[in-house]
Amino acid sequence: QSSNVPKLGTCITCHGRDGIGTSPVFPNLAGQKSLYMVQQLELFRSGARKSEMMNVVAKSLTDAEIEALAAYYEGLDPGK
Amino acid sequence: QSSNVPKLGTCITCHGRDGIGTSPVFPNLAGQKSLYMVQQLELFRSGARKSEMMNVVAKSLTDAEIEALAAYYEGLDPGK
Repeated sequence: QSSNVPKLGTCITCHGRDGIGTSPVFPNLAGQKSLYMVQQLELFRSGARKSEMMNVVAKSLTDAEIEALAAYYEGLDPGK
Repeated sequence: QSSNVPKLGTCITCHGRDGIGTSPVFPNLAGQKSLYMVQQLELFRSGARKSEMMNVVAKSLTDAEIEALAAYYEGLDPGK
């Protein structure tokens, strides 16, 4: 199913395809609340939440892509 | 062990004693990377990351309390 998620390739470098951060500074997203992730991606996109990496990445995302990415990560098992 | 963690009582209203957010807008913290949580609490404390709730809460935290809270939440099982 992950192949249907737009722009997932950009996310997985840091947050993993399995939603586990690939280094200690990258948060895990597996099983995270999708509404929280949508809100944060909107804040990154607008620049209200600052992150050199995430501000650039989020700027390219549409509302629909944000919803799809948040749903994908919420659907992963955080305990695997 | 949670009784030894300073100011945990402030956190659990939204993030749960078990690290699972108590509403869809509150992120899960169970098993989250402690370094990420330390960085974000420092950003909330300085005001660089904006949140009406978290800016007030983080302002009261010392560096040692931030470390202890991050370690507590990282140590919880996200899959329970």
